[in-house]
Amino acid sequence: MTTETQISGTTALELEEILTSAAAAAAALGSYLPAERALLLEAAANALDNAASELIPVAQRESRLAEGRLSGELKRTTFQLRLFAEVLRDGGYLDVRIDHADQAWPMGAPRPDLRRWMEPLGPVVVFAASNFPFAFSVAGGDTASALAGGNPVVLKVHSGHPELSTRTARILSAALRDAGAPEGTFAVVYGTQAGADALRDPRIKAGAFTGSIPGGRALFDIASARPEPIPFFGELGSNNPVFVTSAAAAERGSDIASDFVASFTMGSGQFCTKPGTLVVPKGSDIVEALRGTALPGPSPLLNPRIQAGYVEVLQTLNANPGIQVLAQGTDPLADPPSPTLLLTTAAAMLSDPRALQAECFGPSAVVVEYDDESQLDALAESFEGQLTATIHGTDECEVASLLRILARKAGRVLWNEWPTGVSVTYAQQHGGPYPATTASGSTSVGTAAINRFLRPVAYQGFPDHLLPVALQESNPLSVARMVDGKR
Amino acid sequence: MTTETQISGTTALELEEILTSAAAAAAALGSYLPAERALLLEAAANALDNAASELIPVAQRESRLAEGRLSGELKRTTFQLRLFAEVLRDGGYLDVRIDHADQAWPMGAPRPDLRRWMEPLGPVVVFAASNFPFAFSVAGGDTASALAGGNPVVLKVHSGHPELSTRTARILSAALRDAGAPEGTFAVVYGTQAGADALRDPRIKAGAFTGSIPGGRALFDIASARPEPIPFFGELGSNNPVFVTSAAAAERGSDIASDFVASFTMGSGQFCTKPGTLVVPKGSDIVEALRGTALPGPSPLLNPRIQAGYVEVLQTLNANPGIQVLAQGTDPLADPPSPTLLLTTAAAMLSDPRALQAECFGPSAVVVEYDDESQLDALAESFEGQLTATIHGTDECEVASLLRILARKAGRVLWNEWPTGVSVTYAQQHGGPYPATTASGSTSVGTAAINRFLRPVAYQGFPDHLLPVALQESNPLSVARMVDGKR
Repeated sequence: MTTETQISGTTALELEEILTSAAAAAAALGSYLPAERALLLEAAANALDNAASELIPVAQRESRLAEGRLSGELKRTTFQLRLFAEVLRDGGYLDVRIDHADQAWPMGAPRPDLRRWMEPLGPVVVFAASNFPFAFSVAGGDTASALAGGNPVVLKVHSGHPELSTRTARILSAALRDAGAPEGTFAVVYGTQAGADALRDPRIKAGAFTGSIPGGRALFDIASARPEPIPFFGELGSNNPVFVTSAAAAERGSDIASDFVASFTMGSGQFCTKPGTLVVPKGSDIVEALRGTALPGPSPLLNPRIQAGYVEVLQTLNANPGIQVLAQGTDPLADPPSPTLLLTTAAAMLSDPRALQAECFGPSAVVVEYDDESQLDALAESFEGQLTATIHGTDECEVASLLRILARKAGRVLWNEWPTGVSVTYAQQHGGPYPATTASGSTSVGTAAINRFLRPVAYQGFPDHLLPVALQESNPLSVARMVDGKR
Repeated sequence: MTTETQISGTTALELEEILTSAAAAAAALGSYLPAERALLLEAAANALDNAASELIPVAQRESRLAEGRLSGELKRTTFQLRLFAEVLRDGGYLDVRIDHADQAWPMGAPRPDLRRWMEPLGPVVVFAASNFPFAFSVAGGDTASALAGGNPVVLKVHSGHPELSTRTARILSAALRDAGAPEGTFAVVYGTQAGADALRDPRIKAGAFTGSIPGGRALFDIASARPEPIPFFGELGSNNPVFVTSAAAAERGSDIASDFVASFTMGSGQFCTKPGTLVVPKGSDIVEALRGTALPGPSPLLNPRIQAGYVEVLQTLNANPGIQVLAQGTDPLADPPSPTLLLTTAAAMLSDPRALQAECFGPSAVVVEYDDESQLDALAESFEGQLTATIHGTDECEVASLLRILARKAGRVLWNEWPTGVSVTYAQQHGGPYPATTASGSTSVGTAAINRFLRPVAYQGFPDHLLPVALQESNPLSVARMVDGKR
């Protein structure tokens, strides 16, 4: 791309070149040793860190997010690239399994020599999100994990931050090239049409997405309907309910109220893990504390489309007969909007869960009063699949049943903490049953995100010199391996 | 089911009861400790072994397979159940990851205490196959791995062996119940309609299938189009090409020819790993050896539908202008059919790969003569996704490029061995890119098959007593865990 900010979409001709190049890069990138690919990721991280003073002002202008938030997000993004480099050097992600030939294998037939590990899927199309212009965009988690796995990436730029995307892509591409990545390892495309066309192309072997339920479902449907269906890892929508027991409300109701306000208004409520519902005992201090709370002032949303969507969902909620306003600033529907807290009852939520649990992307949340803790299980059951679900309780609370329901509904369950702030770690899980994600067996945050872009291949009966290095008998890469069923 | 052989399909009312019961069983079965579920699987294995003399004659009658083959298959089936019991006791499949809270986590924000493991998906519908009436049917690999993972199973009986299915299901259900499995852990349904309806039902959380490409694709489409899409693990079709280098043909051409005949005619060619294509150098001994070979006599196919499908595909192949008959018995299209070997050239195969590589389920195969080893890469590239791909070579052959292509096309690659006979082991991989399977990241044979029916859940900030046992700090189950990134 030659212009600073490409407004027009990628043409069919440009896309064809990009996909040809990505397909050509796949074999070479996939054949790098993991530790060689680690160097590519570290080079990318260094280049992005060095470009912070160039990138952050552009990000501020295009996303309306604050400088401090964006510099923290860039740090998270480069940390993530370096963490995947560590994952590659560790090699455990390859899930190497070696079965030596065994004439006495008790199945009734001899066991051949079988060696299995994970290989890259091939070129991946990644659809960038608007709400994390670094961490879930050009050089974000999907790109990092797909590249780490050895897959070329074709990234569809989010229209909310085109100039930042173009600049980030240029820095990333140059860093990868200078570090020795094959031509075609990374490219960006612009426009909905180019993104969908890329997803349909037979050279693309997987898709990844973070965004809305309708947008993600449309892309999932494209991926599934292809002559050769491909996996599509979409992170779509989540309400992230929080359940407060009577004991917790009695013990620390006002802390819960103020922490909740901080969590649901963080980043103007534009996190996929924003707690959209707070379930509290009727008559507890929490509702009164929230009614009297000083909500933060108005704060701009990412872009006019998100502003319009927020207003539409909030108006629909407001019009619901089960809903009252609990607290809000002077301009809840203005641009920028003041935060809004709505109030409803357990009975109302149980009678119209889909309406009252609709994700409202922005600084609003719904507080639900329950009459009796015996209603908590039914309330939990009323939710669709979630990224997160939270319990605030005390050590004495009997929450086993509630916790079992929430663990079935969500990919991450929390105790006495708040779901916003998704740490990039080894044990993180960011993904849950639909519609939270289209593939609940996967995560888009944390080191396990690399697993999405790999497939197992077993080698039977090969001499050592023809095997991938990680499968050779002497374990030249010193990776953790399961040998004859033993770890 | 009360009758010995249910011919009519399961009614909507019966299905509703079965699904209600499966959904009710899910929480209880999922909350068993892995070692407790191991006892269920072992009880099932023992009961099936004890019933061999009842089951095998029924299987012979319904499948037309030989007694020796069927008793071996039953042994494989019960071995598989016991191997999954070992997997459960080992616990490594839980992929437990523990991150202790870390204020100094270099991401820029403190790391919370996060503990991640794998939990069951919920009730699974399994579609039985015809060609393995034990190993890929009622108590076969999909059932074993889904149950091992803690998921109730609703099994759709294959119409090819209804009485065997009913008897096997009765024995399996009783064994599970007597060993303490919750009511609803296992049930069978009959008929295409009931199977499809089960797959559409919101209480079902995954599907598994072994069978034809059209049948599997139709079910995959149902699973993907649901309001809540679910994973569908279909094993559909594969040609399993075998590539013979010039050096291997010169060194041991006649052995390759006779071993190939044994492999493609094994079980009347009714294996998903039957080698459907043998690629050999023009002018080698192999073609002449095959032309003069004594092919096995006629042998019945599983059922009239498979016989009719075999004849149809074989007639289409025969009519292709690029095809000649290389060798066949007297009655290639009769019931039972004599084996058939067809002959074509590299040029013909490259000009019409979809026609000449169509899976022909039965005792036939296509031999392709190449002029020059430089054609091997293009021939390999001409194949769609495969379960297996094989090279016959010598230590001196330069096959790196061919091997890289085949590892991209197939889930299992073999060297100087034959693809039939899929060992149930830790490192087995039975699954490849579409159309071999609908989910190339998974396997339906081997211990990794359990992964299909699990999803990750992370617990953040929980006190020890509320955590699943495998995640508790003292590691009460002594499972292998990744702690703070270290294994």
